[in-house]
Amino acid sequence: MSIYKLVLSVTYGVFLGFILQMTPVGNVYAENFFNIKNGQLERPTGYREWIYVGTPVTPHDMNSGKASFPEFHNVYIDPKSWAHWKKTGNFREGAILIKELVSVGSKSATSGKGYFMGNYQGLESTIKSKKHFPKEPGNWAYYSFSTKDHKTLNKTAAMLPTASCNTACHQAGAADDWVFTQYYPVLRAGKAAGEKGVGGKQTKLAN
Amino acid sequence: MSIYKLVLSVTYGVFLGFILQMTPVGNVYAENFFNIKNGQLERPTGYREWIYVGTPVTPHDMNSGKASFPEFHNVYIDPKSWAHWKKTGNFREGAILIKELVSVGSKSATSGKGYFMGNYQGLESTIKSKKHFPKEPGNWAYYSFSTKDHKTLNKTAAMLPTASCNTACHQAGAADDWVFTQYYPVLRAGKAAGEKGVGGKQTKLAN
Repeated sequence: MSIYKLVLSVTYGVFLGFILQMTPVGNVYAENFFNIKNGQLERPTGYREWIYVGTPVTPHDMNSGKASFPEFHNVYIDPKSWAHWKKTGNFREGAILIKELVSVGSKSATSGKGYFMGNYQGLESTIKSKKHFPKEPGNWAYYSFSTKDHKTLNKTAAMLPTASCNTACHQAGAADDWVFTQYYPVLRAGKAAGEKGVGGKQTKLAN
Repeated sequence: MSIYKLVLSVTYGVFLGFILQMTPVGNVYAENFFNIKNGQLERPTGYREWIYVGTPVTPHDMNSGKASFPEFHNVYIDPKSWAHWKKTGNFREGAILIKELVSVGSKSATSGKGYFMGNYQGLESTIKSKKHFPKEPGNWAYYSFSTKDHKTLNKTAAMLPTASCNTACHQAGAADDWVFTQYYPVLRAGKAAGEKGVGGKQTKLAN
């Protein structure tokens, strides 16, 4: 073996070692953050480490005990789609948003009266994909992993009927590409804003 | 130069190249997420890409128009401290939490009646550091960058008096090491839970 071949061989080995070390450990470096198998969306994981976009709260006590989404809805977007949003202001092919439902745990604390988060009680999701949903309005599909008693989550979910979420709610009321950005300040501040929208960069507070 | 020296030299070069490539780009790999200069905390940045832990809402209309923290409080922890929390269940030296204040923008949407986020209007922070705050209870110090009109943010902040936040509120009411984890489901689910607490990993919903 010549010196050069030996050097190349060792160099290649070191490169390979590093590349293996850099292989996706969590979700952060993956291109896609979901898996659809036989028409069923597998329950996504790791979303509490994605980018948080906002929390509406529709408490049971403000909705005659029957809130559609009880009660806090913590909404997240996958990091790759967030990077795309910051750059372009659009939702990319394959964007996934998560809505994690949390109960109201308390209505009073040292900080005042209000609504304070209790326990997890449900999980919903929406995905934009022309490849997967060519006929859905805006190419968005909606899923729910919540069970009726709100104590467990299903492992997989079938797409909800188009009329139940897409045309009935999101198409009519959502501000930007079927997404309720009007309630998600992180998305509004980050839209095509680059690094300006990541928090703390601007003295003037505006969305 | 011997073959072995040459090989070692090239290998070292390749290693160095990779290490330089892996040098902190954003905040994610930094050890510290804040800077205190002459006793003033510089306004932290990039926290909307940190780990979200929960959102209490103390609306003006539930607090006689004078909410202490108007109105939604989006709370984040820096990623390094989140990793430490997942592993050990404790807040590390240098942990920083951000509380970003958001107005109530609406009280009704297609999802029901409730509270929906409007615009950014303030920024608060707390840091745990024995090095910086050896005499503060729990080594926690509190800061506010909010201005009186809630329309801009200050660039720096002095530590708030110990009695104003620490002993008056957090020492008395917070569940875990001066932090109100009782209202932060992400921290409860993630406490020393490793990868189980990142969302979607468990079928049974519990904190």
